[in-house]
Amino acid sequence: MSQKTRTGHDPKVLVYQSQHPEKFATVLAELGVPNVTTARSTDDVEPDLSDVEIMFGWNIPVEWLRKAPRLRWVQWSGAGVDSVVLKRDQLPPDLQLTRIVHQFSAPMAEYVFTYLLYVVKDVRRQQKAQEQKRWDPFRAPLLAGKHIGVAGLGSIGSEVVRKARAFDMHVSGLSATGRNHHLVDVHYGADEWLKFVEPLDVLVLTLPLTEQTRHVVNARVFDAMKNHAIIVNVGRGALIREADLIPRLAAGRIQAAILDVFEREPLPVDSPLWTLHNVYVSPHMSGPSEVRRTSEFFAENYQRYVRHEPLLGLVDVTRQY
Amino acid sequence: MSQKTRTGHDPKVLVYQSQHPEKFATVLAELGVPNVTTARSTDDVEPDLSDVEIMFGWNIPVEWLRKAPRLRWVQWSGAGVDSVVLKRDQLPPDLQLTRIVHQFSAPMAEYVFTYLLYVVKDVRRQQKAQEQKRWDPFRAPLLAGKHIGVAGLGSIGSEVVRKARAFDMHVSGLSATGRNHHLVDVHYGADEWLKFVEPLDVLVLTLPLTEQTRHVVNARVFDAMKNHAIIVNVGRGALIREADLIPRLAAGRIQAAILDVFEREPLPVDSPLWTLHNVYVSPHMSGPSEVRRTSEFFAENYQRYVRHEPLLGLVDVTRQY
Repeated sequence: MSQKTRTGHDPKVLVYQSQHPEKFATVLAELGVPNVTTARSTDDVEPDLSDVEIMFGWNIPVEWLRKAPRLRWVQWSGAGVDSVVLKRDQLPPDLQLTRIVHQFSAPMAEYVFTYLLYVVKDVRRQQKAQEQKRWDPFRAPLLAGKHIGVAGLGSIGSEVVRKARAFDMHVSGLSATGRNHHLVDVHYGADEWLKFVEPLDVLVLTLPLTEQTRHVVNARVFDAMKNHAIIVNVGRGALIREADLIPRLAAGRIQAAILDVFEREPLPVDSPLWTLHNVYVSPHMSGPSEVRRTSEFFAENYQRYVRHEPLLGLVDVTRQY
Repeated sequence: MSQKTRTGHDPKVLVYQSQHPEKFATVLAELGVPNVTTARSTDDVEPDLSDVEIMFGWNIPVEWLRKAPRLRWVQWSGAGVDSVVLKRDQLPPDLQLTRIVHQFSAPMAEYVFTYLLYVVKDVRRQQKAQEQKRWDPFRAPLLAGKHIGVAGLGSIGSEVVRKARAFDMHVSGLSATGRNHHLVDVHYGADEWLKFVEPLDVLVLTLPLTEQTRHVVNARVFDAMKNHAIIVNVGRGALIREADLIPRLAAGRIQAAILDVFEREPLPVDSPLWTLHNVYVSPHMSGPSEVRRTSEFFAENYQRYVRHEPLLGLVDVTRQY
């Protein structure tokens, strides 16, 4: 915890967002957070950083963190902090970095089951039949009894597991720490990917992107999977080596990929992922951040900060999440 | 219970199905059910009914039931028995009628959430964006926090409720008997439709079709619902008065209708339900009956029958389900 707050005045807060930072400022004022200034990521002008003690935002340039001599705490307004922790050698020492936790679990788990059911139930086939006014019943597979594996058992992965239970799926999990291992039928460690994926019908990625997880889902992992498994990625694009995934989707070795995140975002127009018939692309929207809810998270943490209490969502920069 | 079985020989069983009755016969032989004959609904020839004691099938003509003097038990191979109980004055006295229970809960509840999520999350919009290679995030509504009302709290409705809980929805229920009222936050009786539907975001129908429930969802009920609610019908088509539903869908008063069952099936090609943009039509396939599983249900009941034990899924013909 910082020892340096409360120098007699309110710490200066910089809100940094790509769009409408003033909306955050308005909500923060309502929530009793004083001394707030704003910057927009699309502006070229660098704000005065000399007396900023707290930053609240998304994809804040790492060089700004270094240029703010009084900076003590950065609240990221998202769940994944890879863009900053992967440059952790450039961060000032003693900086507290926090991320949003718990807020994205519900929308992201809903996203997973929306598209998983869409694929498994072949809604596309039925919608085509309706377009053609064809009364043509077919037997759709069940989620019940299928085996889902959730890589990453934080708040998002845990919520995916919870919903999978309501669909009577078999549930495996993989995580580096073993946290929440009690939620799954079988738990695997970070060195057990091949054993983990072997029996799965559905693999869901909710992992953070770290040096250890970059391209962790690669040719070796795909080749250990059974035929016609489905992959869902709501974590980070670079968890998957797309160059290994694409030919296996084209060949039908992987039944389908449901991808909300990509190695490059926005997904380049020449990526084959856009057009493969068994790929379901969405534009990194499964866990939308809301001005009010993320501001509430920040305001709660702000009160903890000024009272010298432990912050919520504190990132272990060495662990990278 | 029948007092007249076990006359020294195995009771004669007639399997009546529209397709492949011999497949049922093969499975029943494996399951140890003797003395099985078959008939196909598409054949014009009426089988010898003189010594049939048990029938197992779907949409068996009611006149056959009257023409079989030794008939004691009919196992319907579906969950809904409206086509026979609505002609109950034509049934022989002392006939036991059973329906399949529990087997359809999982697929039907999966169907409900497949299409409900498809509509709420606007998957169609995202699929169109993908077709056009457009990276265009939008904020999709959540199921969490929405209010779902389930009319009919038998095995199917109960499973819908269970899954709704995993999506953190508010859950109301309506049923005539009050059975399973403890599963829902608020329970309504059969005379409380208007109060029941008033706060709902989503209305799901899993009711049996009886004289009391025919057209129970009509103009009065629609007009009591709030704007832009979603209706899902997996019960029977005639629960809804389609003539009242169609103009309200066309006007957007009802946000969407997810319909697996219709007043007339197959849905006539000139029905506006096929083409309304906010109607999701499927061909009565949410609860597919499987040869093996329904045969297992019958074989279990057959053993109960010959041992003079109470049958599973016994229909109260007066109650009509």
